[in-house]
Amino acid sequence: MTEFIPPGTRFLQLEQPLPMKRGGALRGARIAYETWGTRSAAGDNSILILTGLSPDAHAASSEDDPSPGWWEAMVGPGKPIDTDRWHVVCVNTLGSCKGSTGPASPSPEDGQPYRLRFPDMSIEDVADAAVRVVDALGIERLACVIGNSMGGMAALAFLLRHPGRARSHINVSGAAQALPFSIAIRSLQREAIRLDPDWNGGHYDDAHYPESGMRMARKLGVITYRSALEWDGRFGRVRLDSDRRDDEDPFGLEFEVESYLEAHARRFVRNFDPNCYLYLSRCMDWFDIGESLGGDTLAGLAAIRIERALAIGVHTDILFPLQQQEEIADGLRAGGCDARFLPLPSPQGHDAFLVDFERFGPAVRGFLDAL
Amino acid sequence: MTEFIPPGTRFLQLEQPLPMKRGGALRGARIAYETWGTRSAAGDNSILILTGLSPDAHAASSEDDPSPGWWEAMVGPGKPIDTDRWHVVCVNTLGSCKGSTGPASPSPEDGQPYRLRFPDMSIEDVADAAVRVVDALGIERLACVIGNSMGGMAALAFLLRHPGRARSHINVSGAAQALPFSIAIRSLQREAIRLDPDWNGGHYDDAHYPESGMRMARKLGVITYRSALEWDGRFGRVRLDSDRRDDEDPFGLEFEVESYLEAHARRFVRNFDPNCYLYLSRCMDWFDIGESLGGDTLAGLAAIRIERALAIGVHTDILFPLQQQEEIADGLRAGGCDARFLPLPSPQGHDAFLVDFERFGPAVRGFLDAL
Repeated sequence: MTEFIPPGTRFLQLEQPLPMKRGGALRGARIAYETWGTRSAAGDNSILILTGLSPDAHAASSEDDPSPGWWEAMVGPGKPIDTDRWHVVCVNTLGSCKGSTGPASPSPEDGQPYRLRFPDMSIEDVADAAVRVVDALGIERLACVIGNSMGGMAALAFLLRHPGRARSHINVSGAAQALPFSIAIRSLQREAIRLDPDWNGGHYDDAHYPESGMRMARKLGVITYRSALEWDGRFGRVRLDSDRRDDEDPFGLEFEVESYLEAHARRFVRNFDPNCYLYLSRCMDWFDIGESLGGDTLAGLAAIRIERALAIGVHTDILFPLQQQEEIADGLRAGGCDARFLPLPSPQGHDAFLVDFERFGPAVRGFLDAL
Repeated sequence: MTEFIPPGTRFLQLEQPLPMKRGGALRGARIAYETWGTRSAAGDNSILILTGLSPDAHAASSEDDPSPGWWEAMVGPGKPIDTDRWHVVCVNTLGSCKGSTGPASPSPEDGQPYRLRFPDMSIEDVADAAVRVVDALGIERLACVIGNSMGGMAALAFLLRHPGRARSHINVSGAAQALPFSIAIRSLQREAIRLDPDWNGGHYDDAHYPESGMRMARKLGVITYRSALEWDGRFGRVRLDSDRRDDEDPFGLEFEVESYLEAHARRFVRNFDPNCYLYLSRCMDWFDIGESLGGDTLAGLAAIRIERALAIGVHTDILFPLQQQEEIADGLRAGGCDARFLPLPSPQGHDAFLVDFERFGPAVRGFLDAL
């Protein structure tokens, strides 16, 4: 099984087993992370970043790895998450194939990849794994936990399960529970992978790899990560030049938008482990901050104890729709937090936080500057 | 190849070849249709209904076929499309597997199914086939052409290519051109079918049938036909009872919304021909009323000559979004038509016209009553 680990990654080898919410425990797990900036003498300037499904811990360039990170425009000296002031930690999610232990990692039992032997994994486990890193770095109280997309779910789980470990929170295009439209999309993505004969119950290898299933899953992902509005302006009805078309294939690619999806999918399918994808996708469906309170989302959010929060979303997001970020702000406020909801008019849908830095930059900077 | 033809279906056998927009001609084709009501002595009370991708010609029950039709609540005595007043004709789309000639029909060359030998089919061909029925019935001028979804595209093509053949038009959740989000969704549906090894380049049979591909395509269809808003209220996060779950399958169905998609897909996969699906899906991507005018949609619409029109859409439609029906009304108005745009707050998305009769009924009735 291939893992995809940036060169600047640091690892925390867990000495103690990590108990999993749905039962069992992970023994011998490791958590990948990177850091930027310097801890203050008071130890009160640390920010934790929790990521979406696919990013690694390399949020930004560093001395150890000068290649641009996935949030390069947001993290660095003088940038919105200003590493001249803040000590920033980005954790690669548990269950990933990018450094942290996941279904593609060797099981301590036999040294063979876990595959589907990996225990059922929940968002809460992702949060608990991140806390281990915070503990290991000796950070008693974070200045802020920032979570994007799936990381927004993990951040809420972190704050609820580990009270007192953070002063503030920025939730970026996250959600307090999975809703049926998003569950339906993710369920279909998982079905595409599982239907691929080369998935083979999780027992694929590089020679027999569920490439078609991963391609379908990724294309459906990209469709729901962006927005119709953006694509109307970007692609319209522009067709591919004849030299980019296969005239022998009567249903082959014809429009620019189809080629865009194909290119995105090609970059992804061999760079993310299919079993890891299945586990991470499913843990989002399971997430509900109000689960132990009879599904009362607002009560779950109100049980979180932090001082300040900002929930950002965009109008064009169909996967984590805007009312979910409004709900986060409402719920945190009900718990006594000074929480603000910030809807942005970005056309780029769920992915806006990865591209619309003109809007997200000032929003994040303004919140952190006022801490 | 199985065809699925309701018992009340009537057929028009085309004596002359049907020239196809992209080249070639269909010889020996037939067009399926049903009618309700009686033609007036003046011959001015006929309404033509053009359907979405999958419906047959059986829009409503009749003496020949008392089973409920797909628009039963809308068509009949005293109903919004009142067959006590109107003579109603519903045509099964060319390219379908429900009576009209399509890729599943026998080719006159060898009596074997066309499969991918069926000529490239455009929305304009669908419209021209419908005109043949209108001609055969001796209808000089229709009182109204009603088109739903894909049928809304075909209705616009009908009106543009056959001026003087209709006084008025109701466009229901249709579009004057395909936009990239919808193209992307349909492209992915076609890819799912084509990826299924049992599709076999179009050479499947009942024993080796692209069931998985059709299931994926249909599920993605249902996801985009409805709306997140509707599902939040309808399914929420409700899980299946344990006796409806397969505990042996670690990624099997778990939420009600997944079971709903599965049930929809099961009803569809063996009741619609996969090659027909591919052809009908692609002809929507190709459609652009402004194609011959350099892609100027409004100019294409403004070239249509009718007296009155109503373009209805719903706020929650992500596949044929509301601005497309507004565009239709704007464009028709620019051509001198008394055209009205009616946005409805239905929560059911693109499919609302098939279920939200409380809103669609009065809208359609009001327009027709005033004719």
